[in-house]
Amino acid sequence: MQEDRQENATILNNIYNYSNYLSKKNFIKHGFRQFLFILIQLKNTNMFSRQQLIGQIRQKKSFLCIGLDTDPEKIPAFLHAFPNPVLEFNRRIIDATQDLCIAYKPNTAFYEGYGAKGWQNLIDTSNYIPKDIFKIADAKRGDLGNTGEMYAKAFFDKESSGMEFDAVTVAPYMGSDSAMPFLAYKNKWVILLALTSNESHQDFQLAPSGQRVLYEQVLQKSRHWGTAEQLMYVVGATRAEAFLNVRKQVPDHFLLVPGVGIQGGSLEEVCKYGMNKDCGLIVNASRSIIYASSGHDFAEAARAEALSLQLAMESQLKKSGFLK
Amino acid sequence: MQEDRQENATILNNIYNYSNYLSKKNFIKHGFRQFLFILIQLKNTNMFSRQQLIGQIRQKKSFLCIGLDTDPEKIPAFLHAFPNPVLEFNRRIIDATQDLCIAYKPNTAFYEGYGAKGWQNLIDTSNYIPKDIFKIADAKRGDLGNTGEMYAKAFFDKESSGMEFDAVTVAPYMGSDSAMPFLAYKNKWVILLALTSNESHQDFQLAPSGQRVLYEQVLQKSRHWGTAEQLMYVVGATRAEAFLNVRKQVPDHFLLVPGVGIQGGSLEEVCKYGMNKDCGLIVNASRSIIYASSGHDFAEAARAEALSLQLAMESQLKKSGFLK
Repeated sequence: MQEDRQENATILNNIYNYSNYLSKKNFIKHGFRQFLFILIQLKNTNMFSRQQLIGQIRQKKSFLCIGLDTDPEKIPAFLHAFPNPVLEFNRRIIDATQDLCIAYKPNTAFYEGYGAKGWQNLIDTSNYIPKDIFKIADAKRGDLGNTGEMYAKAFFDKESSGMEFDAVTVAPYMGSDSAMPFLAYKNKWVILLALTSNESHQDFQLAPSGQRVLYEQVLQKSRHWGTAEQLMYVVGATRAEAFLNVRKQVPDHFLLVPGVGIQGGSLEEVCKYGMNKDCGLIVNASRSIIYASSGHDFAEAARAEALSLQLAMESQLKKSGFLK
Repeated sequence: MQEDRQENATILNNIYNYSNYLSKKNFIKHGFRQFLFILIQLKNTNMFSRQQLIGQIRQKKSFLCIGLDTDPEKIPAFLHAFPNPVLEFNRRIIDATQDLCIAYKPNTAFYEGYGAKGWQNLIDTSNYIPKDIFKIADAKRGDLGNTGEMYAKAFFDKESSGMEFDAVTVAPYMGSDSAMPFLAYKNKWVILLALTSNESHQDFQLAPSGQRVLYEQVLQKSRHWGTAEQLMYVVGATRAEAFLNVRKQVPDHFLLVPGVGIQGGSLEEVCKYGMNKDCGLIVNASRSIIYASSGHDFAEAARAEALSLQLAMESQLKKSGFLK
């Protein structure tokens, strides 16, 4: 009952946000179409609420996300004897690690690089991920109005595109237009880029913006676009002290954290500065897990890496009091 | 001969930029792989130089780009009797308008929204566009290092992905990492988002950033990432007076200008403030052309709309002295 009420609140909130987002000028012209669009989304049946996510973390004692950045040139050579090497690889990785992680995150680039067949692999991979695991399309999309709606269809509307993720990463440069069409979907998530883990994030994200720097302004403005039930942020692990700062702006939101592992971020530091009472973190590792071995034992090696991270996470969850 | 020298200069410049972009720390680790990657790009045969682009503008008396934002729900109903309605629509639009425009620009969202079949339509559409017309993938991508390389493969490497565009639009939020893998391709273009035409561009693009606003800082920093032979900017037509400002930062670069037509921008104003000696503008129209009629005459109606824009552009090109 309480969950139902929460869901209804989220739906109403989505409608409210979406109608605010349409300017008054455009409302008469587009209003009816948008209203129909929202109604269509409401019939959406798959969902992944914040409570479910927290439940997964509690049950698995883990907040690990595994990045399925599958490069056909990097997978074990023996797989190339299979009809679909990439899909074979992904399936085995998922089979070997699904009890240790709470999310999978294919980065769309690795699939687009191989044309329509690659795109089909993305679809088949997303459909292979068990329903109780959070599915993130790391797509870093962002476009205006009617175009944004098409991107939302691509990642959230299985009837149209053949796949349905729970969340999509979005770039903020174009402003709220980029996020709103995704937020119009019931119990779907936008994960907005805030502070990324790459070196050149300094070019603009740390540029002074008024009294703040840009990524802080992104947090401050965008936190009103949706609730902490539908909006998360990407914050890279490579600058752990920044989490203190991030938490001042968005104490409740979940953060998706890349950069632990090969990129050098420290899990302990991230937890120290970034955790909140609901854990509030999804920490991603990609290459360090999926390419842990290039031999026949790649899936077992991936499991061992994932297990080691899960155990470290369990210890952090206990330390924080989230787990008894 | 002069063109060859220019090409070589561009290649060397790419190599120089790309090696700068690799930090010293990473160079030893990744340097050799990146070097091989650049060599592979050098064998690329299709290209579209700035001189060719200017030649097209001179020959066609036009700087029109047609946006192939093809929504299956908006195309004429009779096309749904064809085996592939979207492709049929795009082919007829291209057939009817190719002597009037210098570029086509499919927005990838409209293809991704329909799964692997949609992606195949994007590939088939890109391959149907005549080679002497500039092909822009309006993808607004942006990701780091190895992921960025995969996106570059998706849009520039036909052997891998089945399609080869001349240019791709890129979002700047993650900094130079987002652009460099694309710029490593010979005679391929990055079109970086600067000032977009949507309403919420104000959220961040106009936010004060040091002594400037953010989009000005994007121009100022990024203009050194590549030369005006390989880098353009998206500047929306809806704020024509901003072109004055843009031209102070990037006098030579071409600008891709959306927002003329349905979004209300004025061609005359854009030309007044945005043109340079080489024209320097590619003005895009999408819906006003491709959905000019919803009947059997849609291609003729699209041609009429394109012709009207081409004639207006011819007049502007004469006024500016670019055409005698």
